Amino acid sequence: MSVVVQKYGGSSVADAERIHNVARRVVETKRSGSDVVVVVSAMGDTTDELIDLAYSIHADPPPREYDMLVSAGERIAMALVAMAIDRLGEQAESFTGSQAGIITDALHGKARIADVRPQRIMECVERGRIPIIAGFQGVSTDTLDITTLGRGGSDATAVAIAAALGAESCEFCKDVEGVFTADPRIVPDARKLHAVSYEEMLEMAATGSKVLMARSVEIARNHGVLLHVRSSFIAAPGTYIREEDPTMMEKAIISGVTHDISEAKITLLAVPDQPGVAAKVFKPLADAEVNVDMIVQNVSHEGRTDISFTVPRSDLAAAEVAMDKVVADVGAAGFSRDTEIGRISLVGAGMRSHPGVSADMFDALADAGVNIEMISTSAIRISCVIRAEQVETAVRAVHDRFRLSEEVVYRAEHPEREADPS
Amino acid sequence: MSVVVQKYGGSSVADAERIHNVARRVVETKRSGSDVVVVVSAMGDTTDELIDLAYSIHADPPPREYDMLVSAGERIAMALVAMAIDRLGEQAESFTGSQAGIITDALHGKARIADVRPQRIMECVERGRIPIIAGFQGVSTDTLDITTLGRGGSDATAVAIAAALGAESCEFCKDVEGVFTADPRIVPDARKLHAVSYEEMLEMAATGSKVLMARSVEIARNHGVLLHVRSSFIAAPGTYIREEDPTMMEKAIISGVTHDISEAKITLLAVPDQPGVAAKVFKPLADAEVNVDMIVQNVSHEGRTDISFTVPRSDLAAAEVAMDKVVADVGAAGFSRDTEIGRISLVGAGMRSHPGVSADMFDALADAGVNIEMISTSAIRISCVIRAEQVETAVRAVHDRFRLSEEVVYRAEHPEREADPS
Repeated sequence: MSVVVQKYGGSSVADAERIHNVARRVVETKRSGSDVVVVVSAMGDTTDELIDLAYSIHADPPPREYDMLVSAGERIAMALVAMAIDRLGEQAESFTGSQAGIITDALHGKARIADVRPQRIMECVERGRIPIIAGFQGVSTDTLDITTLGRGGSDATAVAIAAALGAESCEFCKDVEGVFTADPRIVPDARKLHAVSYEEMLEMAATGSKVLMARSVEIARNHGVLLHVRSSFIAAPGTYIREEDPTMMEKAIISGVTHDISEAKITLLAVPDQPGVAAKVFKPLADAEVNVDMIVQNVSHEGRTDISFTVPRSDLAAAEVAMDKVVADVGAAGFSRDTEIGRISLVGAGMRSHPGVSADMFDALADAGVNIEMISTSAIRISCVIRAEQVETAVRAVHDRFRLSEEVVYRAEHPEREADPS
Repeated sequence: MSVVVQKYGGSSVADAERIHNVARRVVETKRSGSDVVVVVSAMGDTTDELIDLAYSIHADPPPREYDMLVSAGERIAMALVAMAIDRLGEQAESFTGSQAGIITDALHGKARIADVRPQRIMECVERGRIPIIAGFQGVSTDTLDITTLGRGGSDATAVAIAAALGAESCEFCKDVEGVFTADPRIVPDARKLHAVSYEEMLEMAATGSKVLMARSVEIARNHGVLLHVRSSFIAAPGTYIREEDPTMMEKAIISGVTHDISEAKITLLAVPDQPGVAAKVFKPLADAEVNVDMIVQNVSHEGRTDISFTVPRSDLAAAEVAMDKVVADVGAAGFSRDTEIGRISLVGAGMRSHPGVSADMFDALADAGVNIEMISTSAIRISCVIRAEQVETAVRAVHDRFRLSEEVVYRAEHPEREADPS
């Protein structure tokens, strides 16, 4: 069957008016000839309110009960969406994660989807009805308990369902119109991208794009699900996320500029440059569940080197506790912390075959008077740590330099320089 | 195993403080040596808010989705109660109706419990934990859909679970201290009853007592479940509802006075007194789903009789539509309606063997200047329809006459009169 999965987030179903809007979109899709399967998040702030309720009762709520509680929000939203569709003359049936066959492990609060058994959903579609599925939740077949999928869980539900149904696409209907070349609040002439590859989207998600979380993009990549990020409110196409098209002779080298000001930087000073040191530094951070992001270690001088890395600012306190121990363990001179950093990243699959992109980026930052403190690259991404207060200037400068507001093929100005300077 | 089922209503779990109170009560019961199984309603007005949400989306919500929606309230309450119990150092696990094995028919919104399969609940108890079960909901094994049990559903869940577990009792923990001889807001010296029989409680529920709905009492009677209505907030015993004790030589004849001002009276005038007329009158009312309560037909004069009956005031409009048709069908002279009626009832199992109770009741009403408009009796109840504005006066007069505030055995003053004058 030809099925489209549509996922609507919390702000798209925040009140009765928006729920009616979602119902209209779903019914239009159905009447245009596609079978539709809908995945919904909880209304607006419902889940946050339930979390507040939990913490008003218990400082450390038992995970099983926490999941039972916070999974209630999607139940409310999905039943209301089903009612709104019924009002427009189509038949809809809502399904909890458990009823929809979302089988997970038993890790409450951050369960992973282990399997999807979509028989009830398929039967519902075959009867000409529209299934409305609760995002963010599943059931553990080991314990028969309700689980929740953690951050990005509703998106993950949608992609997993799309994969299990062999859907033609999975649409994320959001309050943004697609993936842009930069944050339009910072760059007013940022351009909506027609398409990006899974790898580009993963890099963008990892470096500050809030449009999709990496988790759902990974599932899509692994199962070849075509994603489509589009507006809940206007009908225009948004951005497709798919396999890179190897047949295109010339393609855009750069997809976009992302930024992130939620991190802090820690620098471990004068670390003895010996085998095993890096492990000694990062094992205690992993044990403390600190999410380390960029790591940069430069060549050593006189047998000692500095190691810098970034962590989410919310993990900084835990990281500092771990670092006190690390300094003693490895015989470093100490560590410094910096909470005023920002990161700007340039992402594009075409970078692989185009040296000189990084040089142009550094040049643009220099021209804008932005000093670069750390650099790290992947095959399709260049990231620079800079001062937080210069992030907006830097995003605009790089966006301009690469002419990202125009739909043109960028050609490097400095092809002679090294593409990967790290 | 020796299990007590405790059911807490919506006002007992209305906020965090009350939820902690419920948890303390549950944990005290557990630590005093009984295994405890808890059934909860949704917090405060949650279910009403969900119903409002449904009607803000759809004037006639599809029943399956309506049930999916309104069953969310208990999920929230039960998870919070489980968390609060965990905080006190006992382990609790919450279960949806479906997880608890509450199997129903597929009549959404007013499903009947068909079976209880309490394996998970029993295993939970056997592991030393406290199961917290969502009231008001179940699952249809035919359709695998979530159902709700309608009015009084949470009480019905509790009694059905108690029956399936062979529990020693089912406690209803409420914001009242038990069943009283009359409404204490009208009769300040009304007395809390130690015990009433199932039959008495059924009559009291049918004639205006709001303490328990007839539905759960019927399940309890059919399965011999001992009920205990008590306060959520104070530890004192409340009222037991159980089989009549045939071994007691002398027992209280009268259990209480109930009243109801929610009904209206319709009188069909000068109906030809022929076989089949009553069926012609009440069939159209049943078809219109009008809930007819008291029916009184007196001896006929000149081949014609008046038939009076009461209906909930909320059904009056539908009843009048049906009556227009009935008047023509049966050749009656017309019908009258009266919305200013009230009903006062005297309930007591001992009435069976004590003639004269009704005469004393009529006497008490006469002394209080209350005119009786209709009378109907059962073996253990006498009901009088009077003016609505005289109901409070009448309740106090009858309560006084039968000395219900004292724990004494009443003896009829008019044993020579006929016990059943209707």
